Amino acid sequence: MPITGMQLIGSQNVAGAGPSFQAVNPADGREIPPSWQGADARQVDQAVQLATAAFVSYRETTPEQRAAFLEAVAQAILDLGDELIERAMLETGLPRPRLEGERGRTVNQLRLFARVVRDGDWLDARIDHALPDRKPAPRSDLRMRQIPLGPVAVFGSSNFPLAFSVAGGDTASALAAGAPVVVKTHPAHPGTSELVGQAIRNAVQQCGLHEGVFSLLAGPGIDLGLALVRHPGIQAVGFTGSRQGGIALMQAAAQRPVPIPVYAEMSSTNPVYLLPGALAARADALADQFSVSLLGSAGQLCTNPGLIIALDSPELDRFIARATRNIQAAPAATMLTTGIAQAYRQGVQRQLDHPAVQSLARGLADDAPAHCQANLAVTTAQGFLADPEHLGSEIFGASSLVIRCADASEFQAIARALEGQLTATLHLEPGADDALAAQLIPILELKAGRILANGFPTGVEVCDAMVHGGPFPATSDSRTTSVGTLAIRRFLRPVCYQDIPDALLPAALRAANPWHITRTER
Amino acid sequence: MPITGMQLIGSQNVAGAGPSFQAVNPADGREIPPSWQGADARQVDQAVQLATAAFVSYRETTPEQRAAFLEAVAQAILDLGDELIERAMLETGLPRPRLEGERGRTVNQLRLFARVVRDGDWLDARIDHALPDRKPAPRSDLRMRQIPLGPVAVFGSSNFPLAFSVAGGDTASALAAGAPVVVKTHPAHPGTSELVGQAIRNAVQQCGLHEGVFSLLAGPGIDLGLALVRHPGIQAVGFTGSRQGGIALMQAAAQRPVPIPVYAEMSSTNPVYLLPGALAARADALADQFSVSLLGSAGQLCTNPGLIIALDSPELDRFIARATRNIQAAPAATMLTTGIAQAYRQGVQRQLDHPAVQSLARGLADDAPAHCQANLAVTTAQGFLADPEHLGSEIFGASSLVIRCADASEFQAIARALEGQLTATLHLEPGADDALAAQLIPILELKAGRILANGFPTGVEVCDAMVHGGPFPATSDSRTTSVGTLAIRRFLRPVCYQDIPDALLPAALRAANPWHITRTER
Repeated sequence: MPITGMQLIGSQNVAGAGPSFQAVNPADGREIPPSWQGADARQVDQAVQLATAAFVSYRETTPEQRAAFLEAVAQAILDLGDELIERAMLETGLPRPRLEGERGRTVNQLRLFARVVRDGDWLDARIDHALPDRKPAPRSDLRMRQIPLGPVAVFGSSNFPLAFSVAGGDTASALAAGAPVVVKTHPAHPGTSELVGQAIRNAVQQCGLHEGVFSLLAGPGIDLGLALVRHPGIQAVGFTGSRQGGIALMQAAAQRPVPIPVYAEMSSTNPVYLLPGALAARADALADQFSVSLLGSAGQLCTNPGLIIALDSPELDRFIARATRNIQAAPAATMLTTGIAQAYRQGVQRQLDHPAVQSLARGLADDAPAHCQANLAVTTAQGFLADPEHLGSEIFGASSLVIRCADASEFQAIARALEGQLTATLHLEPGADDALAAQLIPILELKAGRILANGFPTGVEVCDAMVHGGPFPATSDSRTTSVGTLAIRRFLRPVCYQDIPDALLPAALRAANPWHITRTER
Repeated sequence: MPITGMQLIGSQNVAGAGPSFQAVNPADGREIPPSWQGADARQVDQAVQLATAAFVSYRETTPEQRAAFLEAVAQAILDLGDELIERAMLETGLPRPRLEGERGRTVNQLRLFARVVRDGDWLDARIDHALPDRKPAPRSDLRMRQIPLGPVAVFGSSNFPLAFSVAGGDTASALAAGAPVVVKTHPAHPGTSELVGQAIRNAVQQCGLHEGVFSLLAGPGIDLGLALVRHPGIQAVGFTGSRQGGIALMQAAAQRPVPIPVYAEMSSTNPVYLLPGALAARADALADQFSVSLLGSAGQLCTNPGLIIALDSPELDRFIARATRNIQAAPAATMLTTGIAQAYRQGVQRQLDHPAVQSLARGLADDAPAHCQANLAVTTAQGFLADPEHLGSEIFGASSLVIRCADASEFQAIARALEGQLTATLHLEPGADDALAAQLIPILELKAGRILANGFPTGVEVCDAMVHGGPFPATSDSRTTSVGTLAIRRFLRPVCYQDIPDALLPAALRAANPWHITRTER
């Protein structure tokens, strides 16, 4: 399938009218054809107008139609074959197995949302039957269902060119909710994005849906994204990216004449506690597992373990010694863009320049313009607590800071000093560490969306119980998740129907329950 | 129980240090003792610090403990006896039957949330069991539950001194969620508020809960409320009041270093369509029902029918003639405050001065400083569509505007021109009006939180299927409701537990399911 460098607006390929840009291979710094002319405000308007028109019919599709569409998108992505993987490798520097795994995850996620749509629990259908004889006043027949908010703007992330991008979790959950989607691609992988966009467009056509159900806009810089968020037709925003970018979108959305929700997944340092019993039992194994988690994908994961917290002890020295050897031997990995690599280098340098921090290990360097030289450093609990804002802020890439604690009471002080997080981890030995863990969990619950034991936070399962979210600044909205089936709820709002004749009720609420969904009835 | 004029901060009565104020009887304009010294920033801090301290234990109460507390609050309000009703009559000008009914609703609402808490569905407990043999990678054990956000600030409304005030829906749903509450009372009924606050405090003590679970702050002006919303310990806000007030709180919350959700219920004109079949069948009855709905509580209801939309026809003339007679005969009612009465008079005058509007009827006037002289006026669809911003804005009080439509296509144009609404109503004759209703419902679903047929929107049932919400500016957040059991969801966020040993899991997620709640398991 040829990559055109065009905007995909409904069924049309449209030449952009904004600033032009091109993909760059981060491994060698060379531009990759074709070039894109970025979308401008007029194209934003075209895409959102089409989405608004499509909303009328798309939100009324049956669960079966919508689920079949999600499955068609999944199949169309698979049908892109190796061209997709090869283009993504060129544009992102990520290795083939990672991208093939990510494609599988993307496809499975679409199929999972097909199941969610068919199940119908997302409709949250509730029926309070009329009570005509109730005293002092009768009760009307009251029925409730969830409906989609309207067209959603999705911002593709840099670090997951498939699973958090054009057909990623935000798009899958919005389409599942019945919301048309306008994607703003990440400019680091425009060709990958266009291929996936063409796949979604093919599925739209194949399923006979309104062309406006999906559009893809590409462009560099923040202006295009802000124009999209400010468009009155957009009703919600999904974003995975930097704290600065997410806050800019939050502010733009809050300042609209009609404010809209923004679901931005932004930054997290993902504290990992190595409790004394666990460290005594398996310091070496923990060091090896930590190193794998830190180094994978050049550390460019939202759930990268950026803080390690443990008691000052010979066991911690042993963990550090082995992790240091692992990191020192780590080959340079290619980061997603030279800009990300530069920000990483600056972030590491700032950390190493901090008076409370000592360097432990640097990984190997190479000549690639976007290479990542891994970083491991150490500070004390007192050092961290004196400046949690700087030492607790995310360095996007393979960088982690060990915090040596003089006693276990500092564990809690650090937990309390943390900003909002996507994850918090406890390595514990049942029995030995239970009391410490039981003190920490209630604090960590208020700081993070996911608490895990005896694992590392990288690797986010897509399932019913997953929460990939957390208090600000991990996300803009701690009430939600961007991964897992609960993500559909972000794009829904409830509507109540009072004494509406059965023939005029939506199918989900009719007496005959034609969709055979579970309903709460009283 | 004596009314002290003090701030109720946890278990202490504290003299305020801000500007002083007093309740005013709207029937005669006289001040009612005692006087209050308003709370200042230091007292805000005391109350929020206490709430933060209480959150630790309160959020860990069992469903049974929390439900028993809500029931104790309900009983303590009943135990206030007639003193509560008499004070509320004095402060609000509302008649006894209305206030007794509202007390019943308030008490029933607390008891309903006790049932919700015991049921446990609000926990949304989900378990994805470990799949150790899954290929290519095993699945961890993943469990999810909802936890409360943290201390909630609740703003009492002017128009429901009991049901949307100190122990109203916001407080009941926040307490049910496990969130301590700091109430900012409405300065129009400080004595009523203090009595209810004392009742809640008694229930806190009786149930052995931390004193910080509930505090009550009183004061005039916007500064106290803004200080509360800006306090870093406050994690969410519930508000029922004016559009201007709600937007000020939304902006303050969005500009915090850590933004928080605001649930503001603000303004709505509640369009009522009289479809041709219904009007032909029962114009007189509709006029009578409309008049009752318009005039009750001096029209000071969020769901007051402020717009009537119908085809220009002899049947509409008949409806108007009868409604005109009803309104002309309507005695002046006392409004809640002289300020509200003044805003009402100005709003009516602005409407009657509009070149597209003709007066139909004014109710009777009297000498009370806060009296409400009902208003009925008429315009055309073209007149309305030329200036929907002014003609579609809420006039808080007994005022309604009839819109004469030349043909049914104007029904849809008006629906599309409306701002977000709490309700939209269709009077219809099954068969005769189905086609028109079927065209309107999909448009109205995107404009309103509740759609009703053959009734009037005043009177909001408290049940599972109720939605008292809707798109901006009806509320700040269309994804929620402030009435009904779904309101609890506003104060919750999900947390995922991955591979956490059973003994360290919260009770809701333990293998033995000690709370016997419904859980989604896969």
